[in-house]
Amino acid sequence: MTLRTLLSAVLAATALAGCATPTLRGSGDLGVVIERAAGSLQVVQQQPPASLARVRGLGDLSHASLVYSRDARYVYVFARDGGLSKVDLLTGTLQARVLQAGNSIGGAISSDGRIVAAQNYSPGGVKLFDADTLTLLADIPAQDAAGQSSRVVGLADLPGNRFAFALFDAGEIWLLDAANPCQPAITRYRGIGRQPYDGLASSDGRYYIAGLFGEDGLALLDTWHLDAGVRRILPAYGQGETRLPVYKMPHLRGWSLAGDYAFFPAIGQSQVLVADSRSWQSVAKVPVYGQPVFVMAEPGGRRVWVNFAFPHNDTVQVIDVPSMQVVHTLKPGRSILHMEFTARGDAVWLSSRDDDKVVVIDTRTLAVRTELPAANPSGIFFSWRAGRMGM
Amino acid sequence: MTLRTLLSAVLAATALAGCATPTLRGSGDLGVVIERAAGSLQVVQQQPPASLARVRGLGDLSHASLVYSRDARYVYVFARDGGLSKVDLLTGTLQARVLQAGNSIGGAISSDGRIVAAQNYSPGGVKLFDADTLTLLADIPAQDAAGQSSRVVGLADLPGNRFAFALFDAGEIWLLDAANPCQPAITRYRGIGRQPYDGLASSDGRYYIAGLFGEDGLALLDTWHLDAGVRRILPAYGQGETRLPVYKMPHLRGWSLAGDYAFFPAIGQSQVLVADSRSWQSVAKVPVYGQPVFVMAEPGGRRVWVNFAFPHNDTVQVIDVPSMQVVHTLKPGRSILHMEFTARGDAVWLSSRDDDKVVVIDTRTLAVRTELPAANPSGIFFSWRAGRMGM
Repeated sequence: MTLRTLLSAVLAATALAGCATPTLRGSGDLGVVIERAAGSLQVVQQQPPASLARVRGLGDLSHASLVYSRDARYVYVFARDGGLSKVDLLTGTLQARVLQAGNSIGGAISSDGRIVAAQNYSPGGVKLFDADTLTLLADIPAQDAAGQSSRVVGLADLPGNRFAFALFDAGEIWLLDAANPCQPAITRYRGIGRQPYDGLASSDGRYYIAGLFGEDGLALLDTWHLDAGVRRILPAYGQGETRLPVYKMPHLRGWSLAGDYAFFPAIGQSQVLVADSRSWQSVAKVPVYGQPVFVMAEPGGRRVWVNFAFPHNDTVQVIDVPSMQVVHTLKPGRSILHMEFTARGDAVWLSSRDDDKVVVIDTRTLAVRTELPAANPSGIFFSWRAGRMGM
Repeated sequence: MTLRTLLSAVLAATALAGCATPTLRGSGDLGVVIERAAGSLQVVQQQPPASLARVRGLGDLSHASLVYSRDARYVYVFARDGGLSKVDLLTGTLQARVLQAGNSIGGAISSDGRIVAAQNYSPGGVKLFDADTLTLLADIPAQDAAGQSSRVVGLADLPGNRFAFALFDAGEIWLLDAANPCQPAITRYRGIGRQPYDGLASSDGRYYIAGLFGEDGLALLDTWHLDAGVRRILPAYGQGETRLPVYKMPHLRGWSLAGDYAFFPAIGQSQVLVADSRSWQSVAKVPVYGQPVFVMAEPGGRRVWVNFAFPHNDTVQVIDVPSMQVVHTLKPGRSILHMEFTARGDAVWLSSRDDDKVVVIDTRTLAVRTELPAANPSGIFFSWRAGRMGM
């Protein structure tokens, strides 16, 4: 081997990172589309819309969610089978994967980006991992006062390397301080309500809200005033006494806290509910086409987009916020499961599971900019999430 | 030279930004430090803090500002000499530069990322450029009703490819709709107050606020209700009748609209003012160490950091929001000109102009994590700005 061929080989090798020669690109305009039936994800570019890569071998991606690394290069995918995968978006490769539990439904990343937290159903509890290596740092069983294990839901990151989550079976909210991630400190709030089924942090990480499956109302923790404990808000929110059929229990991550308002799906009824975001008093009930699932405000807060449970999931409606009325009804495809806005709201991407496509809509004109093929797409997650709290 | 040292040298060389093979990296955790005396900028990595490259030849960077491309790969630098430069952060190189005016103090980028807008003093007006090529798309003179040219200030992006700005000499606010960037549409609001000197958009792009140099109070435009016109808020805000010495006229970009409050510097007095962000009624006046310049809320909104005009600019104070009191006083270096938080607030970077350094402080412990050398640093701009409005 001559010196020259040796140098060429070394230079070529250093340019390789997983595949041939990854294109140099900024990661601020990327995204990921979950292809749940195939257990794969697509790496996409937002503008112009394009598919960049497909990554396979991620396990059972039904109900999968993910969070971004702080540099927006990697995503951490939480699969239903308990797998935690780290995917490099720039090379389109699976970097690491650990099977960390038997059944898992989500996770979060610490505010400094160094700790990935996974919430588990079976066995219940939360595990903390090093974001670089996926090395286990801490295993926190979720046990109630009697020592019974609980499923964990609604895990969210808060400022200062803290996390909040709820214990479904125990009816508790826990605050986890990971200043020392190998020995996290736990503060427990007991008796916060029956069967919290999901949780949500406000975009500034101040408030943590848990939805209650076992009774009406929601549980709110103000992390600026921890001594005040958990209080009840929206006491009438829930299934009520009549217990109408609920086609899909809406996620709290389908709520929008935008400007002066909180927008959220009624349970079992064809309404979007609006509350004042300070007082939590009801402001409006907007009649819509079906039972809402995701109620997503545009980044500017001027309009709110809503998708629906079966059998109305071929439809998306747009609510005008000043008038609190539906102003547009769209039929973008069959089984619209998720919606994701670009960071500054010029477009919204919709996943149409049964049409095997992702639809990109210009929010100004409501015209379809383009459609991208995708295999039974569900969640869409853009890389602006890397810089936000409560994701 | 042994084979081993040769290989080491080659690998080290390929890791250098700005040369043959730039390192593959996400752009979500990058930043730029303006070195104003040298007319250069440093490309930095936030975590772990590191300097990646220095880019020169950017003209007069006194009072320079910049915006990010939507993929967070490029920055557009607006120099005082009218130069507009496009810098590639991944390669550490100057990609393009145009001298677009005689005197300029800032700009913005459209919500779809395709249009860069520059505001100019001389000649007055706004120019629109293609974000890819810096080709001129439109030249909008800023003339009052009598045809007199005005200096333009306070240019900010709004949702839907719109921009707002103020005409200092004319006392007007203009709304520019760049749906067709070659033929933008202008809406003029005349008689909004004497000598608007700066402007600010709220983080959702709904409100545009102009500060007034020629009289007290501020001018507010609610872009959801354009027909209602511009109204006056905080009528007592300003220099008042006594006209105390003002060491530095604070930028409106030094205001923070966070949670329920607006935090902003008093003019000519050693106070931080707090108003309710809905009603604009005064809530508190917090006594501080000197005349405040930047009043920056942490991303979580729990604390507000303040720097000061000469002769108090060796000091930074931290206000606790629930108690509205100063809880920490730091002396991080001489001439602290600017502060920038990481996206989720685990650290704040401070530029110390006269100590030729940037100081990285852990917001949780208030300990100095590290210091990086920089030549007379002024503005620090992190890449999370790529995904935000009103930057």
